[in-house]
Amino acid sequence: MMRVVTFGEIMLRLSPPANTRFSQAQSYDAHYGGSESNVAAALAQFGVDARFVTRLPDNDISDGAVAGLRALGVDTSEIARGGERVGVYYLERGAGQRPSRVIYDRKNSAIATASRDNFDWKRIIGGADWFHFSGITPALGENVAEIALDAVTCAKRCGATVSCDLNYRTALWSIGDARRVMARFAPHIDIMIANETQLRDVFGDDAHFPIAATTVRGGSSADENDFAGELRIGGTVYRSRGYRLSIVDRIGGGDAFAAGLIYAQLNGYAPQDAVEFAAAAGALKHTIDGDVLLANVSEVEAVVDGGDGRVDR
Amino acid sequence: MMRVVTFGEIMLRLSPPANTRFSQAQSYDAHYGGSESNVAAALAQFGVDARFVTRLPDNDISDGAVAGLRALGVDTSEIARGGERVGVYYLERGAGQRPSRVIYDRKNSAIATASRDNFDWKRIIGGADWFHFSGITPALGENVAEIALDAVTCAKRCGATVSCDLNYRTALWSIGDARRVMARFAPHIDIMIANETQLRDVFGDDAHFPIAATTVRGGSSADENDFAGELRIGGTVYRSRGYRLSIVDRIGGGDAFAAGLIYAQLNGYAPQDAVEFAAAAGALKHTIDGDVLLANVSEVEAVVDGGDGRVDR
Amino acid sequence: MMRVVTFGEIMLRLSPPANTRFSQAQSYDAHYGGSESNVAAALAQFGVDARFVTRLPDNDISDGAVAGLRALGVDTSEIARGGERVGVYYLERGAGQRPSRVIYDRKNSAIATASRDNFDWKRIIGGADWFHFSGITPALGENVAEIALDAVTCAKRCGATVSCDLNYRTALWSIGDARRVMARFAPHIDIMIANETQLRDVFGDDAHFPIAATTVRGGSSADENDFAGELRIGGTVYRSRGYRLSIVDRIGGGDAFAAGLIYAQLNGYAPQDAVEFAAAAGALKHTIDGDVLLANVSEVEAVVDGGDGRVDR
Amino acid sequence: MMRVVTFGEIMLRLSPPANTRFSQAQSYDAHYGGSESNVAAALAQFGVDARFVTRLPDNDISDGAVAGLRALGVDTSEIARGGERVGVYYLERGAGQRPSRVIYDRKNSAIATASRDNFDWKRIIGGADWFHFSGITPALGENVAEIALDAVTCAKRCGATVSCDLNYRTALWSIGDARRVMARFAPHIDIMIANETQLRDVFGDDAHFPIAATTVRGGSSADENDFAGELRIGGTVYRSRGYRLSIVDRIGGGDAFAAGLIYAQLNGYAPQDAVEFAAAAGALKHTIDGDVLLANVSEVEAVVDGGDGRVDR
Amino acid sequence: MMRVVTFGEIMLRLSPPANTRFSQAQSYDAHYGGSESNVAAALAQFGVDARFVTRLPDNDISDGAVAGLRALGVDTSEIARGGERVGVYYLERGAGQRPSRVIYDRKNSAIATASRDNFDWKRIIGGADWFHFSGITPALGENVAEIALDAVTCAKRCGATVSCDLNYRTALWSIGDARRVMARFAPHIDIMIANETQLRDVFGDDAHFPIAATTVRGGSSADENDFAGELRIGGTVYRSRGYRLSIVDRIGGGDAFAAGLIYAQLNGYAPQDAVEFAAAAGALKHTIDGDVLLANVSEVEAVVDGGDGRVDR
Amino acid sequence: MMRVVTFGEIMLRLSPPANTRFSQAQSYDAHYGGSESNVAAALAQFGVDARFVTRLPDNDISDGAVAGLRALGVDTSEIARGGERVGVYYLERGAGQRPSRVIYDRKNSAIATASRDNFDWKRIIGGADWFHFSGITPALGENVAEIALDAVTCAKRCGATVSCDLNYRTALWSIGDARRVMARFAPHIDIMIANETQLRDVFGDDAHFPIAATTVRGGSSADENDFAGELRIGGTVYRSRGYRLSIVDRIGGGDAFAAGLIYAQLNGYAPQDAVEFAAAAGALKHTIDGDVLLANVSEVEAVVDGGDGRVDR
Repeated sequence: MMRVVTFGEIMLRLSPPANTRFSQAQSYDAHYGGSESNVAAALAQFGVDARFVTRLPDNDISDGAVAGLRALGVDTSEIARGGERVGVYYLERGAGQRPSRVIYDRKNSAIATASRDNFDWKRIIGGADWFHFSGITPALGENVAEIALDAVTCAKRCGATVSCDLNYRTALWSIGDARRVMARFAPHIDIMIANETQLRDVFGDDAHFPIAATTVRGGSSADENDFAGELRIGGTVYRSRGYRLSIVDRIGGGDAFAAGLIYAQLNGYAPQDAVEFAAAAGALKHTIDGDVLLANVSEVEAVVDGGDGRVDR
Repeated sequence: MMRVVTFGEIMLRLSPPANTRFSQAQSYDAHYGGSESNVAAALAQFGVDARFVTRLPDNDISDGAVAGLRALGVDTSEIARGGERVGVYYLERGAGQRPSRVIYDRKNSAIATASRDNFDWKRIIGGADWFHFSGITPALGENVAEIALDAVTCAKRCGATVSCDLNYRTALWSIGDARRVMARFAPHIDIMIANETQLRDVFGDDAHFPIAATTVRGGSSADENDFAGELRIGGTVYRSRGYRLSIVDRIGGGDAFAAGLIYAQLNGYAPQDAVEFAAAAGALKHTIDGDVLLANVSEVEAVVDGGDGRVDR
Repeated sequence: MMRVVTFGEIMLRLSPPANTRFSQAQSYDAHYGGSESNVAAALAQFGVDARFVTRLPDNDISDGAVAGLRALGVDTSEIARGGERVGVYYLERGAGQRPSRVIYDRKNSAIATASRDNFDWKRIIGGADWFHFSGITPALGENVAEIALDAVTCAKRCGATVSCDLNYRTALWSIGDARRVMARFAPHIDIMIANETQLRDVFGDDAHFPIAATTVRGGSSADENDFAGELRIGGTVYRSRGYRLSIVDRIGGGDAFAAGLIYAQLNGYAPQDAVEFAAAAGALKHTIDGDVLLANVSEVEAVVDGGDGRVDR
Repeated sequence: MMRVVTFGEIMLRLSPPANTRFSQAQSYDAHYGGSESNVAAALAQFGVDARFVTRLPDNDISDGAVAGLRALGVDTSEIARGGERVGVYYLERGAGQRPSRVIYDRKNSAIATASRDNFDWKRIIGGADWFHFSGITPALGENVAEIALDAVTCAKRCGATVSCDLNYRTALWSIGDARRVMARFAPHIDIMIANETQLRDVFGDDAHFPIAATTVRGGSSADENDFAGELRIGGTVYRSRGYRLSIVDRIGGGDAFAAGLIYAQLNGYAPQDAVEFAAAAGALKHTIDGDVLLANVSEVEAVVDGGDGRVDR
Repeated sequence: MMRVVTFGEIMLRLSPPANTRFSQAQSYDAHYGGSESNVAAALAQFGVDARFVTRLPDNDISDGAVAGLRALGVDTSEIARGGERVGVYYLERGAGQRPSRVIYDRKNSAIATASRDNFDWKRIIGGADWFHFSGITPALGENVAEIALDAVTCAKRCGATVSCDLNYRTALWSIGDARRVMARFAPHIDIMIANETQLRDVFGDDAHFPIAATTVRGGSSADENDFAGELRIGGTVYRSRGYRLSIVDRIGGGDAFAAGLIYAQLNGYAPQDAVEFAAAAGALKHTIDGDVLLANVSEVEAVVDGGDGRVDR
Repeated sequence: MMRVVTFGEIMLRLSPPANTRFSQAQSYDAHYGGSESNVAAALAQFGVDARFVTRLPDNDISDGAVAGLRALGVDTSEIARGGERVGVYYLERGAGQRPSRVIYDRKNSAIATASRDNFDWKRIIGGADWFHFSGITPALGENVAEIALDAVTCAKRCGATVSCDLNYRTALWSIGDARRVMARFAPHIDIMIANETQLRDVFGDDAHFPIAATTVRGGSSADENDFAGELRIGGTVYRSRGYRLSIVDRIGGGDAFAAGLIYAQLNGYAPQDAVEFAAAAGALKHTIDGDVLLANVSEVEAVVDGGDGRVDR
């Protein structure tokens, strides 16, 4: 079995039921999610030996996150315990002309206050085939950037492929900080997931990664989107078939795409097959409540093959 | 009042809430359904004296099925009691690119283990105008096929019209068994509901039924479908207007179509009117949670007349 | 801050969960709503000092209505207490070909049995910039029509602008009664919200109001509608951009449009800007559960600006 | 099978979930109940042929009441249709020191506005063994009192036993009215259910009924009560064993007691056995959500026999 | 109307449904609460003009807290806006031998990061009759202690009575810090709510407050408690009747007691009457879901008078 | 870490919400449970390396069971896949005088149709310290009894301690069969959990096990029970303190007791300490929804130490 390690933050997501607004909430649906844990969870369901690494405090809210990952088959044995809180994000699901909204309350989380000696990367990554992280992780603070750089360096030294989902978020850091920090990661990254605008903004015009990929999204409503994937290898661009999405949950589509791409690469898919698998994984995620793609490989393949929506009896 | 008898299995349907997946279920929505009980329930709401016949064990789960039918006005007085379990099916509602999925757990149900002397068809069917069953019923086992044949023979002898919804399911029996068993029913069937491919597969190229009907379905998503009805009498094909369905619940659309057709035939509708009524009943079912069309005749007619979706105050 | 007073009935709305039918209800979602209270609630969220006036009995069901308005920032200090019951309406949410249905149980409510001396309009309206009511209010009974006429006369005397949402409902009164009663209000109304057919039916061919406005709605399903707004000033017609609505809740769209229009007028918007704001408010309402537009001015403006449905992080 | 007819009002009961207060309600649990329909529903589950008679408007809210009764096996074929509304009562479930609270909104219901010619008592009651009503029914208005008197007179003429649950409610009528009206019923009543204080208040010191019965209740909390039954035949008082109730739902305990008593009398139980059965039925009702005792005879008998609360596998 | 000002933190409380554990939570019930906001909310329902003062960030989670207070009639006009987050606490409701558990995530909340110039106490408190705070507020940080001291000093200068609910929490500060800081408040406090052990621990053996009060609690289960109130004026101790509580929600009982005491003092109750009212308010709170006593004065008085738990129709 | 292996059936448990009856169920709460999986799950939470062995079909319902166990930390790597269905049991939670009721639908489950070669016991049990099973497992059929005997024999050969929870169920097998089959297991069992009556019934008067233990239960209601544990070693009986239980969920109390006892034995507790720990684990289980004791060692110890039900902040 292939082994993948991902590193980042996992948060408690709290969302008012169905399409209700924050101001109507007498309860919140609870999910756990984060870019890198979502990738690990999807990969575990694809049958990959996926380990997610983070730092969580020693309390029941953390235990819920760990149990949830464990239920999905993710290896949680290297999650460091310490710090004071689990990051939280509040999600209001949009509808029609009303966009979904996210309020972050993630500062001072256990991972954001971690230090380099919380992680023994040689033990954690040793023997892995792949290391994945997102640009959100270094954005959590200089300390977390250093930890991530330790991980990436170690991964490269171990011969693992390194992928990064750029995910540049203006709410987390300035473009200046992003440029300065991400430049240190760039030389180690084999596969960069980002659209061309973001790539240019963060890495400048001359940046080139061996493999680049991105989701392409269009549409004017919170319920429906056009969606496809794009993979650039050398000068060639491979584009997946397009999907008209009917959206159950908008969060985690990019992470599912990343997981699909990693899976396809690990299994030696041809480029067009790889981007089709990744895009199908991303499309399928939008039909599933929560941050995580809950689907196995054959379900993704059925989407690639263009299911007709009939009942599967 | 016209009297209709239907015979088959009614199961407990368990589905995770809204669009969630099996793996997320902390509870299951409970409905009861089965092809022939769905037809009886729809007919009862159309004002027909509809009796549903099956066999159920003597426990509270069965009682729930019976009470639900009784609430809808179905005559349950000839449901045999005995056997050990109520059949169950698990339904995961799809969305967008993700199809709905059904897991059957119906083996060894009370009806599947019934014997011919559980049913006194002369008393049950005597005086009825119509008898309806689906191809699922004989597929439950040789014993059930014999019982169904008893019923069909008795119905014909009593002068009742006999209709059958072919509903060929590969999960239940082989095509060879289906051909062998259904051939015994064919001579007694006045109205066969099935598409042409299924008809040919099961009855061969030369099979002809006085009246044949089918739903016609297109579309590539679990949320939206194109839908219409088709009625073939002699050499003439009558096709209903087409509907663009926005699907609340995909199960039971064919049963509602069958009920609509039976109602129209019982009331002497002209062929085009009959297929319009049946198709509208089928379309309307897709907007209703559960297996059963919960609507009266005037609501179906409003769909035929092409409602504009305005609030009905 | 601008001050607006609205007067009418607020009812308890009871609707079966999600898309279920009345016959499936083991519980009802509870909201409070009424044309004029919906307008006041939307205006309060736009930052307007909005007072809603009605009569409610002295019980916990009334208290819930008042608390809900207070939570939204509506001034409830002039709600008269007395009478015996809160009006109720039952709402079944439609889907696809199945229309939403409303059953009213509002007779003998506290406001329907009110008398003129329950309201001291000089105190209530004094200093207000605007008075708004709907045609539903005089339809509640001759006594309520007299009370509304008192209010309108007082408003005009105080120099307030008077707007009316005609909302002619055949279930409430005959066209003859509507003509007779509304004719007494006509001279006082500065802005009339109604489509041209309704205007002609109720006020005859020669009726002219300084400003007239209406929503324009098309579409053939309970889930999706085309929607726009229209504003007529003098001979000129200003029409908003059109929206393709994906409908969460069909009730209160017109009230949100009215509130948007009032807000725009109070703030001196140019006619095209006014109708765009009003139409966006109306469109946005359809994405929100309950009768009331829960949104602030910047959210409405984002719709005017044509949001792309992306997650707002 | 023994045949019982009951006559009275059935209302929609709306209660905030679990132990929440009216002011917290975002939804209401929906049940249907009324003293006489509760008795009929309990008897139907005891295997008695129980018919409930009332008047209901022709709408979906009524249909829900009828379907619910039909599900429980009650004969609803003689429910008159007409009038405008279904009566409603709001119930806030208490806890500990906080009592349960009821707000009635039942005025002008279909039954309260019924007339004598809505009911053909000879057809309705003919052949019945028993007629039951409560003192609430004549309290609904002089017209309803006349209708009830028609029913009682007809029942006596048909040789049916007549029972009445006095249920004097100060909210419904004055003691003067109650005395005047109930005096007309007294000569026809074979079994009167009321405590001695109520009996004396309404019928005076000399009133004597062949059989009288009452529940005896003690306790100082909304969760727990002491409960027993008492039956007086001639000069002898039979008292049931006492129960310490842990209360799930406080409503309908008296109705279940009445149903138990009627069942016991119909089946010729000895007095002590009768009061034990009735008290057990009443006690059991308190463990069941809603107005109606959902239990069969053997479950009531298990309570009489003093169940030990072990799991029944 | 009497005017009361309270100052402290209000948090979002998240609790798994009913009695489920953190590890089972797929959703959290949401309430808002905090010692001083709970007191203000109870007083507002008693008809007192109650203002709650805090600092909250400018987001939807804060808006929910403010709307909830406004619904209850609390004056929220002096809540400062700024800072980054709303404090959160997670509550797992216990049962039987399993205690309720609280996990705080309140660090760096808007109030904890407030500065003295966020509050203009002269404007806020001017004209108030009473100022109330708890020992939790100074424990939030030195800055908050200074702000609270500003408030208390200002209140005394304005002639308001000052009450403090000591509420010493070891999780928030050390006993040394508590002693040092609370000593600065002691001279200004007219009524101290704390038990004798806590008083001695924090203020030493010689501490004496004009009036002291406390709840007295016994019992060995999460569902049931013995509960009473005690008031010490001069050398005399007044003790309320004792209650056997059946607990719906354990949080906020002390705050309801404090609110009851303040109400009684404001209205000149005799000492025994005051402690009875306060204890009844505290007892009643335990029957209500959420942090806040949702009850009016007559409901509290009914508990004082020893309600019998019968249904209040 | 100590290693424990348990073997038996895990079923899907379906229960109507809260205290509602089967006849009211529109949904079922879903849990997974079975005597031996409950023991493994509790032990995993105590920090023991607990492996649960069974056979499950290859479908999503099984996957849910496995994911749930994995979330709790149970080793599921040796669960055999095959067969056709997951056993189901329906649970109606009782209240007061109404007992909880269980309807089993477990026949023909994957484990009931397993064969000896589905399990390689040497690999599964090798190195384990303890093997546990219940008398339910051999009752599932002769084939399962053989498999269990293979496991027990293998466990003894490996030097593991063997414990058995007798759990004699008349619904599953006759006393004759139980005697015949259990006699073959008796020689291998080190710790037998059963009360003296059951021991004598199944094993006769002379049966003696090195260690025997049982829970002792009293009480007459579905909500409240007296509960204690008893441990017999040699001639000495050790009895735990008694608990007055307030019952949230009655299922799994005995399994939690067994897990507590195994934990105590594995960790060398003195007999009195062992029975206290086991009884506390059993008592605590009754406060938790579902079949499984969700608690760690320190929470059990807090119950042993006699918690006072105060909020644990």
